[in-house]
Amino acid sequence: MRTVIVNATVVTMNKNGDVYHPGFVMFEDDVITMAGEMKDLEEKAGHLDAKLIDGKNGILIPGMVNLHTHMGMVPFRGLGDDCKDRLRVFLIPMEQKAMDQELVYLSTRYAAGEMLLAGVTTVMDMYYYEEEAAKAMDEMGMRAIAGQTVMDEGACDFKDPKEALSYGENLIKKYLNHPRITACIAPHGTTTCSPEVLKEAYRIDSSYEVPFTLHTAEMDYEMEYLEKEKQMTPVGYLDSIGVLGKDTLAAHCIHMTEEDLDLLKERRASVAHCIGSNTKAAKGVAPVSGMNKREIAVGLGTDGPASGNTLDILTQMKLCADFHKNETKDRSAFPASDIVKMATIQGAAALGLDGITGSLEPGKQADLVLIETDSVNMFPVYDPYSALVYSANPSNVEAVYVAGECLVEGKRLKKNDMEEIRRSLINKMKHTDFGKYIENKQELDV
Amino acid sequence: MRTVIVNATVVTMNKNGDVYHPGFVMFEDDVITMAGEMKDLEEKAGHLDAKLIDGKNGILIPGMVNLHTHMGMVPFRGLGDDCKDRLRVFLIPMEQKAMDQELVYLSTRYAAGEMLLAGVTTVMDMYYYEEEAAKAMDEMGMRAIAGQTVMDEGACDFKDPKEALSYGENLIKKYLNHPRITACIAPHGTTTCSPEVLKEAYRIDSSYEVPFTLHTAEMDYEMEYLEKEKQMTPVGYLDSIGVLGKDTLAAHCIHMTEEDLDLLKERRASVAHCIGSNTKAAKGVAPVSGMNKREIAVGLGTDGPASGNTLDILTQMKLCADFHKNETKDRSAFPASDIVKMATIQGAAALGLDGITGSLEPGKQADLVLIETDSVNMFPVYDPYSALVYSANPSNVEAVYVAGECLVEGKRLKKNDMEEIRRSLINKMKHTDFGKYIENKQELDV
Repeated sequence: MRTVIVNATVVTMNKNGDVYHPGFVMFEDDVITMAGEMKDLEEKAGHLDAKLIDGKNGILIPGMVNLHTHMGMVPFRGLGDDCKDRLRVFLIPMEQKAMDQELVYLSTRYAAGEMLLAGVTTVMDMYYYEEEAAKAMDEMGMRAIAGQTVMDEGACDFKDPKEALSYGENLIKKYLNHPRITACIAPHGTTTCSPEVLKEAYRIDSSYEVPFTLHTAEMDYEMEYLEKEKQMTPVGYLDSIGVLGKDTLAAHCIHMTEEDLDLLKERRASVAHCIGSNTKAAKGVAPVSGMNKREIAVGLGTDGPASGNTLDILTQMKLCADFHKNETKDRSAFPASDIVKMATIQGAAALGLDGITGSLEPGKQADLVLIETDSVNMFPVYDPYSALVYSANPSNVEAVYVAGECLVEGKRLKKNDMEEIRRSLINKMKHTDFGKYIENKQELDV
Repeated sequence: MRTVIVNATVVTMNKNGDVYHPGFVMFEDDVITMAGEMKDLEEKAGHLDAKLIDGKNGILIPGMVNLHTHMGMVPFRGLGDDCKDRLRVFLIPMEQKAMDQELVYLSTRYAAGEMLLAGVTTVMDMYYYEEEAAKAMDEMGMRAIAGQTVMDEGACDFKDPKEALSYGENLIKKYLNHPRITACIAPHGTTTCSPEVLKEAYRIDSSYEVPFTLHTAEMDYEMEYLEKEKQMTPVGYLDSIGVLGKDTLAAHCIHMTEEDLDLLKERRASVAHCIGSNTKAAKGVAPVSGMNKREIAVGLGTDGPASGNTLDILTQMKLCADFHKNETKDRSAFPASDIVKMATIQGAAALGLDGITGSLEPGKQADLVLIETDSVNMFPVYDPYSALVYSANPSNVEAVYVAGECLVEGKRLKKNDMEEIRRSLINKMKHTDFGKYIENKQELDV
């Protein structure tokens, strides 16, 4: 089927930075076949055999990419905010007691719905029971990489990291030929996995040419431990054991030396920048200027709902601009067009998917997001990048397509029912240990 | 008429920090008469002669307070974002050429609609032709202080600051007995007004007991000039000329010494903290920790749409939490409940209006905002403060009351039509010089 979205400001994010205004994007089944100015379409209008969709002067952008999250953790959102040691107080005990396959599935479905409604079409997820997450993301129609997390001390799914590695490899095989879903092994972090586990995970991921992602240079204890035990930085350590390569996506990278940045560049590794999560946790601001100078592929991540709360990339875009302008003491630094790059084509590049998604160009997958400009916050629009970064919020996302399939229309999920998804998740949570941690019970008493 | 909003999580922001869950708020005409737990209302339910409104498990909070903005500047939103010297390139020439009474009126109406839809019920505005702004804010039903700006070099409304002072005094008199609108003279800043103008403005404002507000310790040139010419800080200078008092609301206060903070405390002056505008402009983060330690009344401001772009306080709340946690390197600092205080009761106190608005208590004005929790980003809600600061966005504002009058219902303006307001503003802009600055013309070609 041929579809054309017309009368929108088309922000292509191609190498030329083309913006068509007013413009159109045409796609056939899952592939973009043409994009350009409306006047060029009109010349051919007589010959068009296509479904026309009115963009109503909205802004049409490539689907946004969320490079780092933990979708299974929706039940944790808001639990332990502002708490000094929420990891020990809430997260770890609750994960051990309450997290199971069904909850991962239901939570991931919810998170996928939330991200789609906010214009995120591609996500790198990492959590436990990731087969359930992959299934949920597939059913919801997203483009996703499902990262099975492995930790030395064991987790809610597997006590033995060897079992988790083997489960992860099977998951990779299962999705090898899937058009949208890829799986990988995502070891937890630089100090929560032994070098043996890190190397084995890297060997497996590399052998299937899937991304290898882990928490890197994020935590104080991580920095102290590696300094004390190895006299190394996290990035230096990853390189020393041979797991820093072009498929390595290092999440966070807050505490970095110049040598670390050079090493990331040299090894062609990429970075998931999680500005909201990092600053809410008072961990600091990653040196993204230095990454940009070196042309390291750095995109945006929300982190999990227990950390950054919201799962949308628009919020991260604004935070990213404000924090880095302020860090560099330069109001012209990190201009809106660069921020939109991080949210789209650079995010796709960080996952090795820039040949597939991240820009509106013929041959790419039809992953598109229409942002309406009718809402009160979206006027005037002099520059679409500026409106996206400084004015928009997730409620402005009007329509979303992944691989040519319309998943959001009129600000609502099209093939799934968000109310049913929420109800199922609530019903499940009621029958777990979440109840007793909840002071404020209205949501669970539904 | 008696109205009761029932079945909401009532976040009172009273001194005890009471949260009623589920709770109700009752008001008669413009005044809150009762607030409490639903079970206490139900005992009396037989005797209730009131209109019942279902809060549907939403979060009911006091109307939010925006302490610093320039509502007449909606036409400038997004013009000059990321531009190093947008003040000289865009703002000043355009203000001289295109700004007139009608544009101030139409833009202020638009900004009032935008703020009401986002749950802002009280605003401190400062701009030119402020009689038009006062009229617009009154018609829209807001609670507002209309600050007539005065500058030595003259502005689009008056070439001579004396005329502006006299216009301002007349405006103050006109609104002396208005239930919601107050006017004041708002000199532009510490270096853009002579000491004579500052003193005269302060004398007039004080004599009518209305706020005195100005830009303070915001700009590099301001700091340099006062250091060079007076060997003083902006706050020290304001005090030296006798214009720092309990009615002084200093906007920004980014560059402060410990002595400045002590002086603000000693003189009982208050602060409008504009974190979004300040960081987007790479100016720095005001030392709010030090203000809080001294119990200075500091609330939140968006700054104008040309600076901070959005006019909602929810976005400022999130930015405020993230920036100050990161500044203090403490994830438990600036907890969500403190941030909500800044957005409500502290904001009201900064304007001397904490006897009237800013909390849900009997005797206060019925300025209420209902935030729905049905949207995908608002689940789960374990703690209402946390949900407000870290999860909510303006699209979650369901209903808004000012002085007991319902202004927003079902996320739409009730007594005004936002589409008509926008259309009128666009039509006016088309007939001004805004056209030629606009590359991207869809909005003006409507």
